[in-house]
This record gives sequence, structure tokens and C-alpha cells, in this order.
Amino acid sequence: MAARDLGAETQLPPAPGPPYKPSRPIVTLLTDFGTRDAYVAAMKGVILGLNPRVALVDITHEVPAQDLVAGAFILAQAAPYFPPGTIHLAVVDPGVGTGRRALAACARGQFWVGPDNGLLQWAWASSPDLTVVSLTAADYFRPQISATFQGRDLFAPVAAHLSLGVDLLSFGPPVTDPLPLPFPAPVWGPEMIQGRIIYLDHFGNLVSNVPIAELQAWLQNRGLLVRLGSHTISGLSSTYEDAAPGAILALSGSHGYLEIACNRDHAARRLGLGRGATLELFWS
Amino acid sequence: MAARDLGAETQLPPAPGPPYKPSRPIVTLLTDFGTRDAYVAAMKGVILGLNPRVALVDITHEVPAQDLVAGAFILAQAAPYFPPGTIHLAVVDPGVGTGRRALAACARGQFWVGPDNGLLQWAWASSPDLTVVSLTAADYFRPQISATFQGRDLFAPVAAHLSLGVDLLSFGPPVTDPLPLPFPAPVWGPEMIQGRIIYLDHFGNLVSNVPIAELQAWLQNRGLLVRLGSHTISGLSSTYEDAAPGAILALSGSHGYLEIACNRDHAARRLGLGRGATLELFWS
Amino acid sequence: MAARDLGAETQLPPAPGPPYKPSRPIVTLLTDFGTRDAYVAAMKGVILGLNPRVALVDITHEVPAQDLVAGAFILAQAAPYFPPGTIHLAVVDPGVGTGRRALAACARGQFWVGPDNGLLQWAWASSPDLTVVSLTAADYFRPQISATFQGRDLFAPVAAHLSLGVDLLSFGPPVTDPLPLPFPAPVWGPEMIQGRIIYLDHFGNLVSNVPIAELQAWLQNRGLLVRLGSHTISGLSSTYEDAAPGAILALSGSHGYLEIACNRDHAARRLGLGRGATLELFWS
Repeated sequence: MAARDLGAETQLPPAPGPPYKPSRPIVTLLTDFGTRDAYVAAMKGVILGLNPRVALVDITHEVPAQDLVAGAFILAQAAPYFPPGTIHLAVVDPGVGTGRRALAACARGQFWVGPDNGLLQWAWASSPDLTVVSLTAADYFRPQISATFQGRDLFAPVAAHLSLGVDLLSFGPPVTDPLPLPFPAPVWGPEMIQGRIIYLDHFGNLVSNVPIAELQAWLQNRGLLVRLGSHTISGLSSTYEDAAPGAILALSGSHGYLEIACNRDHAARRLGLGRGATLELFWS
Repeated sequence: MAARDLGAETQLPPAPGPPYKPSRPIVTLLTDFGTRDAYVAAMKGVILGLNPRVALVDITHEVPAQDLVAGAFILAQAAPYFPPGTIHLAVVDPGVGTGRRALAACARGQFWVGPDNGLLQWAWASSPDLTVVSLTAADYFRPQISATFQGRDLFAPVAAHLSLGVDLLSFGPPVTDPLPLPFPAPVWGPEMIQGRIIYLDHFGNLVSNVPIAELQAWLQNRGLLVRLGSHTISGLSSTYEDAAPGAILALSGSHGYLEIACNRDHAARRLGLGRGATLELFWS
Repeated sequence: MAARDLGAETQLPPAPGPPYKPSRPIVTLLTDFGTRDAYVAAMKGVILGLNPRVALVDITHEVPAQDLVAGAFILAQAAPYFPPGTIHLAVVDPGVGTGRRALAACARGQFWVGPDNGLLQWAWASSPDLTVVSLTAADYFRPQISATFQGRDLFAPVAAHLSLGVDLLSFGPPVTDPLPLPFPAPVWGPEMIQGRIIYLDHFGNLVSNVPIAELQAWLQNRGLLVRLGSHTISGLSSTYEDAAPGAILALSGSHGYLEIACNRDHAARRLGLGRGATLELFWS
């Protein structure tokens, strides 16, 4: 994901959706609803009631409540591994029931359904083809739309209808100005990069906003020195086991961004750091 | 759900199950087993071993341990969004291995499998058609029944056989007296309603036992005043954003009951209240 | 599971995989990845991209981070309930990116994919047929293998190719020495058994390493006395309700091992005990 290009795609003219029809449609779900309540199941019931052939895949329902940045990051991380034609239904929606638009889109050969609040933006980043529509065709909604649960009443049925082959442009008029979600880009200097921790995973790994590919181009085979709080880390590792158990590493992780990890331990707790912490990268 | 009619349906004569056969059978699962252990997977393995075509949908496995009221509420909330013919398998079962009966039923055009302890009652409420049988036909069970895990050995195979089209009446004799689970109905006075918090959701919203439809009929366009602990809330909102961030609202939520919520915050923690708290509703 | 026979099967000559082809292939997933991040979804996307017909079933993703014993136990508990031909994909992998081998296997009529660190061993225990291969045929991997996320880049595509009918021996050369994971067998004396708590479930039940079948053979209808910390428990119960609410029981639980449970409460918290605690069993 060329994260720094974010937003550029919103200037592109709308392109038609791909003719691709998967043999078994896939609908993924990402929300901040948790898995304790009936919310997620209600969405799945609505989808399966309209199209029982769908394969439903949970990305996660544990996005921290109303945390658009975490939701956008997880969606952008997971979506590229799904096949063309996959429909991604994402609902982190602090503005539900207000005037914010509801969107469906085609980008990167996949479909996207969710609120117009930036949640989908990072997954679309740099997509050469992007068509976005505002969801206005009420024929594709449930008959009654709850003001507080559009996931069930609006987004779920739209995703189901997409899985049945309904054309994207049937759901409403094209939109060229979906709300952006600024990606907190690192500051690149000639001799230093200032980055930031943007995500904390289940293992306690701290994921930064510094893309590994661009970092390696900048290093040009020179060594790396990372300053993070009062800690200094030397070298760019490729596996956790490059360091002794308990040691802190700077890692070219699976996310495509520089990660701060701890071999066999929880880096965030070890370092007492979390999202928003800054790090400075130097040649060594 | 007309919750106050609960129990009435148990007087109805058993009706035959519907002839509906879904193209791809759906089995939902609701338990208090959590998702850490092998319990839920074992149930799914048993079902797929008998019918690999089933679509399995988790409602939740995070019902608090042995909490029949929470389980019954979540099931009653989720089930109506599933299509006819869906089979709901629910196991919150403090009495497992004792003499309590095991049930399967047809109500509201869907099927239900679970212990006879009230767990299924709220989902059946006011169903015009209800057939309940006691599970006695051991041919449809696993050969050995664990005394502590009937979810795997008894309920899962019965759900799978239902999904294969086995007639409900084949599983055992009809039952007309399934154990009720009293719904804590609000007290309606001429000038005041006394309600209670019956459910606390993942977001911290406090769901009361006061049905919105009946509340609105009672209000007849008058204003609403809610007293809850030391707090007073004015007005009935339809979206979270009707109030300033951090403000407490009385909301006509997606559950069909009056909810107490907090815009962009966790109402239960804000108010220091949980399940069982009482609220008083007045005209204003 | 005859746990004490573990390791014996590694001496068997490799047997050919079964010709069984399920009508709808099942792939189970067990990891320590949690469900908050994009990791599990990325694996599922990779699998569905290669074979959209697969039924995906989560065993659990809440194995404590890098806890091979818990992972091996849960997998061995869940797998026997799945039908022949099921493919079990298990990733608890502290050694990812180091030289440890990656394995696929056929045992007990099912398939197994995961790291060579003992995680799969308990599920294979005493299998009369066992074929294990080392995953070396890169054609079946994703084009780029992350050093830290082989679940997505190596194990998931191998599981998907197995589900498409690719022969096990196509993935790499046979292996006869998969890394064992010693099962902490109880110490059997003529008049006493010394056991240990090896698993703590979601309900707080303490599962020991003493197989119920062998315990009952040893008791020969004599009574049982259990000493556990400062507690003494009399008798072997078959259901929770054999004791008063709050009482501690020794239970012939659904796992096939002696369990210490508490009727309607959390035994581990009640007793202040956890994994590793020892228990002594006597005739009474």
C-alpha cells in the first residue's frame, strides 16, 4: 500500500465495475460491534436471507469503538488477500443516523460498502480504478431503516445485492468526493525520518507508518538506528528470532511497515508505549 | 417482539412444521462456551460431519456463563433477521446432565434446538405457530452422550438432522409445557412507567424492558422525561448524535426497546449503572 | 486420546493418504493470532482465493501467545469431531522465520498443516497411519514468503491446495522425525496417582492429565479421593449438579480427562489454582 498517495484516487473519473462474477461470492465484515451482542448476527441473517450462497468472512468485530484509524488500517491490511469480486462490508460509524452519506464502491477489483467517513479510504489507496456511489436506492435497503443500526438495515442488504450481481451504479449516483482519512505520513528528512506508531497488534507489536520498501530505498544498504522513547535499536531484522528472548527489534514485518517488536514478549508493555508514540530513524 | 405476551403460546396446540426447505440450510449457534476452548469447534465438526452443506453462523459464544436472561435476549434479537427454515442451536445449560428435558421446536417458521430451561422462550414469544418436542429419539444423537457436553453429543446432531430435512416430530413426543422464562415486564401506571435495564451491550448502551412502540403510544406526542439513578434525561432521541459528545440520551434504539446511551462514550460506565437498574418514565 | 503413547507413531513407515474426497472440503484454523487484527482474515482470503468452495471453521484464535501446550491440547480435543478429509491448519509458531521445518501430514484420516514444533503431535497421537512431509515445494506457496507470517504465505496456500485434492507427497519429502511435544503424563503408583492440571477452560474448569478411562480401570469400583492444594474432594461425579452450588467436584468431563470443577462457579478462581498445579488421587 503506497500510503502516501492516499487521496489521489479521488480525482480519478469513475470507472465501470469489473464484469467479474465469482463462483461463490464472498462478503467480509469489519465492525466495532464486538461479538457479544446480536448485531453482527443480525447483519449476517439479512445477507443470507437475500443470498444464501454467500461465504461470510469476519475480518474483525473488535475495532475499538468508533476508531476509524484502526478500522481503516485493518481493512487495508486484510483486503488485498481476498480474491477479485470480494465484497467488503465495513461499519465503524460514529455518525450513524446523521446526514453522512452511505457509500458503495468498486476499487482494486473488489467491492466496498460502508459509511462515508474515511473508513474505506486506506483500502482504496492508489487504486487506478475507483467508482463510488452514494447509496440512495431504497429498493435495496430493508423496508425500515433504524437510525442507529444502518449496518443491518442498509449496508448488509446492499452488500447482499452486490453479491447477487446488481450493478454498482444501480445503488445511487456517483460520488467524486468521498470523505478522506488523512494517513499520518512520516516526515522524511535527508538524514532522518520521523515516524509514528499507528497500530498496536494482539501480540504487542508496534506498527509504524514508515513503509519498509521506502525505508530500504533510503537506507541503501546502510545500517539502521531507531530511537523510540528512551530506547535505541540497531539494525533492521527480518524475524523475531534475530534477537535474544526479551530483546527489542526493529522489524520489516508482514504489514509492509516498520514494526517494533520484542522476541517472545509484548513490545508495547515492555516499552510502555502505544499508538501515537514517535520514533526517529537514522543511518548507522 | 411483544415481550409481555410471553408464555401465551404454550397454550397453543402443536402445529405441523412448515414444508419450507432452504436451498442452503443455515444453522446458527449461541452458547456461553466462549471461543477459547474446543467446545464450539467440536459442535461444528459434528454438524458438518452429518451435513457438509450447512452454513454455520455464530450468533455469539460470549453469553455470560449460565446467564439465561442474556442468552434469551440475544437470541430473540438476532433470530428474526434470519430467513425461514433457519435452525437456531442455543446452549446455555446450567442443568446439563440432570433430568431437564432437551427440546426442538418449530416457531415463527424457524427451528430451535436447546435445553428446556427458558432459553428459547423469548425468541418464540407470541408465535402463532409453535410445535415443541422433547428430544428422546437416540438414533439422532451421537452414540455416547457426555453428561456435561450435550451441546456436542445431542443438540448438534439434532440440528444437523433437522438441516437434512428430518421431520420435527421424529425427534420425540410433543411437549406443551416448555419451561417459561419470565420477562421482567415494566410496570405501567397511568402517569408513570417503571422499567428496568435488562441488557448491557458491547458499546455500554443500557437496554431497558420498555418497548418503544408501546412507549410512543403512551406518550401520544407528549415529551418524555426519564429518571435513572440520580440522572434526569429529557426527550426521546433517535440517533446518538442528537446530543453533544458525552451527553446521556434516551434512545429509540435498534432493539425495539428504550435504550439509555451516551454519544461517543460508554453509558454504563458513565452512569455507574448496569443490568437490573430501574428507570422511571414520565410525560414532560 | 491415548496420550501416553505419544511419539510411538513417528516410527511408523509413511502410509499413503486416503483417497477420501469430501463433497465440500473443510479447513479448520487454530492460531494464537487473536481476532482483533487482519492476520486471520488474510489467511482466509488466501484460502478462498484458491478454493472458494471451502468451508472455513475457526477452532480458536485465542491460544495464549506462543503456548504450544494449550494449542496442541485444544487441537487434539476438537479434531476428532470433524469428518474424514478435514484439513486442520494450526499456527502457533514462536520459531517463525528461523530454520524450523513446515509440515503437512495425513493422520487419522484427516490432514494437518503447521510448523514442526510439536503443535500437531497430540492430535496425531497413536494414529495407526501417519504420513508427514516437509513443505518445500514453493509452487504451492504465495510468491513472496514473509519471514514473520508464514501462516498467510505458506501454510494457508498449502491447506487450500490440499482442499483442491493435491496429493500430500507433492508438497515435499517425507519426514520421519517431526519434533515431539512431551505430554506431561501422570505418575502411576500402586496406591496413588500423581497428576497435574494441564488446561484451564473458559468456565474455570481445571483439566488434569489423568485419563478417565484409565482412572476408572484403576479404581475398579472403589471410591476416589482427590487432594489438590489444601482441598480434598471425595468421589467421581459425572455432572456438575452432583454437588451443591459452589461445591468443588472431581468430574469425568467431556475432555476424556479428570476435571476439577465447581458447580455454577469458576473452580480455578475458587481454588486459586491454575495450570501446573498438582493433584494426588487415592482409593477411598
